[in-house]
Amino acid sequence: MATLDAVELIVRKRDKGRLSAEQLGDLVRGFTGGQIAEYQMSAWLMAALLNGLDEAETVALTRAMLDSGRILALESVRRPKVDKHSTGGVGDKISLCLGPLVASCGVAVPMVSGRGLGHTGGTLDKLEAIDGYQTRISPRRFEQIVSTVGVSIMGQTEQLAPADKRIYALRDVTGTVESIPLIVASILSKKLAEGIDALVLDVKVGRGAFMKDLRSARTLAQTLVRVGRRAGKRVSALLTDMSSPIGTTIGNALEVREAIEVLQGQGPEDTRELTLELGVEMLVLSGACRTRNHARRALQRALDSGDALERFAAMVRAHGGDDRVVHRPVLLPRAPVREPVLAPRRVTVTAVDSLELGLAAVRLGAGRLRADAAVDPAVGIELGVRPGQKVERGQPLAWIHARSRRQLEALAPRIAGAFRFGERARRRRPLMIERIGG
Amino acid sequence: MATLDAVELIVRKRDKGRLSAEQLGDLVRGFTGGQIAEYQMSAWLMAALLNGLDEAETVALTRAMLDSGRILALESVRRPKVDKHSTGGVGDKISLCLGPLVASCGVAVPMVSGRGLGHTGGTLDKLEAIDGYQTRISPRRFEQIVSTVGVSIMGQTEQLAPADKRIYALRDVTGTVESIPLIVASILSKKLAEGIDALVLDVKVGRGAFMKDLRSARTLAQTLVRVGRRAGKRVSALLTDMSSPIGTTIGNALEVREAIEVLQGQGPEDTRELTLELGVEMLVLSGACRTRNHARRALQRALDSGDALERFAAMVRAHGGDDRVVHRPVLLPRAPVREPVLAPRRVTVTAVDSLELGLAAVRLGAGRLRADAAVDPAVGIELGVRPGQKVERGQPLAWIHARSRRQLEALAPRIAGAFRFGERARRRRPLMIERIGG
Repeated sequence: MATLDAVELIVRKRDKGRLSAEQLGDLVRGFTGGQIAEYQMSAWLMAALLNGLDEAETVALTRAMLDSGRILALESVRRPKVDKHSTGGVGDKISLCLGPLVASCGVAVPMVSGRGLGHTGGTLDKLEAIDGYQTRISPRRFEQIVSTVGVSIMGQTEQLAPADKRIYALRDVTGTVESIPLIVASILSKKLAEGIDALVLDVKVGRGAFMKDLRSARTLAQTLVRVGRRAGKRVSALLTDMSSPIGTTIGNALEVREAIEVLQGQGPEDTRELTLELGVEMLVLSGACRTRNHARRALQRALDSGDALERFAAMVRAHGGDDRVVHRPVLLPRAPVREPVLAPRRVTVTAVDSLELGLAAVRLGAGRLRADAAVDPAVGIELGVRPGQKVERGQPLAWIHARSRRQLEALAPRIAGAFRFGERARRRRPLMIERIGG
Repeated sequence: MATLDAVELIVRKRDKGRLSAEQLGDLVRGFTGGQIAEYQMSAWLMAALLNGLDEAETVALTRAMLDSGRILALESVRRPKVDKHSTGGVGDKISLCLGPLVASCGVAVPMVSGRGLGHTGGTLDKLEAIDGYQTRISPRRFEQIVSTVGVSIMGQTEQLAPADKRIYALRDVTGTVESIPLIVASILSKKLAEGIDALVLDVKVGRGAFMKDLRSARTLAQTLVRVGRRAGKRVSALLTDMSSPIGTTIGNALEVREAIEVLQGQGPEDTRELTLELGVEMLVLSGACRTRNHARRALQRALDSGDALERFAAMVRAHGGDDRVVHRPVLLPRAPVREPVLAPRRVTVTAVDSLELGLAAVRLGAGRLRADAAVDPAVGIELGVRPGQKVERGQPLAWIHARSRRQLEALAPRIAGAFRFGERARRRRPLMIERIGG
């Protein structure tokens, strides 16, 4: 592609024009092939962010990014293939328990996950808190695990939607992340590369989410569902609340422990409930269960029988991880310093700021602000109270798990400040806000 | 500057915010210093193009780009320093005759010029049609020539507004040329680096110009004048018509010949008139003449006495060029093939499409579509008729000066097609449309 053609594609979007599927294909191929420079792609991305892409363009961009790599065939997998994707939250360990749980109910879950960035955590970082767990495996090995265990969670490879990886890296440093069509194409191109039949999206809304308000979250969810369906998949979305953290833990090993508790039929109510809601959606959407009630009972049986927990252990084993953690979570990495943050007086906790806690967890080392930074698996924050709860003076609001005392002392005020108090609890938004499509 | 800061500057403009002078300084310095990547600058430029820059931002950006290099002091030049800048047209050889002419009337003209790109020609390419003329000279030598001859025309150096050169190159390949604030900052940062006291702008409007309609041309002219004045200079602008080519020649050596004719007191009326209008503006604005009548008479005297022509010869000599061309234009490069394009019938020429002729001249080799391409000094188009003129069947509309017969035959239909015919001449827009500021 000549320079002039790249400029033409930029100018067309700059002047609010529509690009054809062929032109979007040229754009993505030109970029991955090196004929379109990064400075041209970033100018196009800014024009697309400001002037928008319509649904047909978003479908075509998704397709072009998908076509930049291979699509997993997973021919040896006989069961309906279904995945879940979350737009990212604080304390969101749902994939860890959800994947094995629904795999116990007759579906296959080929899950390609990401790492944490900014205040939100990433499933790969959490799994790597388990000694030995390999997130970088070959597509062939991935298929084997999905086929035999029913679920595998691995990292994105160079072979799946490589254009998305390069475009996302460019968006991250050019202020072009916050575009619904670009977000949709990024999510769907990766997920469709998994060769799935159905996809359930968990679109988070609230202070700790990427989408802060209901309206933009709803638009994102609707666009994801429509574009995914136009690409020939069964897709639905749940809008879920992310004003408070999910469950009681933030931090990699801590979250693995909580996920294991859920698989043991315990764990915090909201983590368990969100897992079951998404599980019902996956089983119904994929056709594995005919009704929501049927699906709910199947999930409950898998928890009660220990099948779901054993499925998790089998996945960890298949990925080279130490599956003894399933029964002995004490084997997970533990932070050397652990101190509570205490309630200053007798009071009601009205809110727990998930964004602030997510950022504090990053400062502890549980997450990263740069894509190439390492994370500390052991550190994090454990909540002692939830919004709406009354506390006595001196009662622990949270425990900080830190690498050093200095680090702990530096962050304690910030973590304490994430708890809002009042005379009585405010009415909270329900965890499950809305269901879209399905 | 950290990556995050660059993203902040991009996001601010993306979200329609204003950047402070300090932030625009950081942006330009960060870019020239390599801390802000090209892909970040191009995203910022697209956001600026789509969301605009206000006047204060445009002043600050101009200043930041100016400050990326040195400003010529020209301390040895005692006379008022004044320059003219044209936004680019077809057949625009005005600088060649205007510079020496006004230098004969008591002002100094330190003119830093550019090359042709696209359908518009460039003063440097024209001057280089003169055997030996060096456009790349040192600032020191430039000052010497301005000081002794009164006028020098050289190319942009790495020392003058280097940020503009890099930013312009990036805009050229990222669809971010068409922004009035960016155009203004680019023009003024280069021109203010000349160390001038006053600047007259020739803003062209019409099919062969960068600005196709009067409204956008007027906005550009007004912005140039206001921003230039806020930067402390005397600035005015003329809006002039560019629907037909200026004068009768398009092509480097051909245009030098026409400029010499004007300096000899001859040449086409429009070229002469535009030269005088701009000359009057320069002499009055710089304070060299008190009234327009006074200025007009001074210019006429410089033509009649031969001073202006001799000033041109002196400039050519000082730049190492063969000044014999001044009296023997036949020494200029001549194309080996020369053929007329004939009128198909007895008819009136209603219009001559300058854009089409500019593009045809580029195809002949007189201009370039890529900044790094070479030009052929000899080739071009000579007009036999002007809009409004009646022609007989078989009368030459134009002569094509080509490198080869094949080239000539390929382009003859396109050149013939640039002439529009009718029963009677339409009323034409005057050459001088409007004067802004001053």
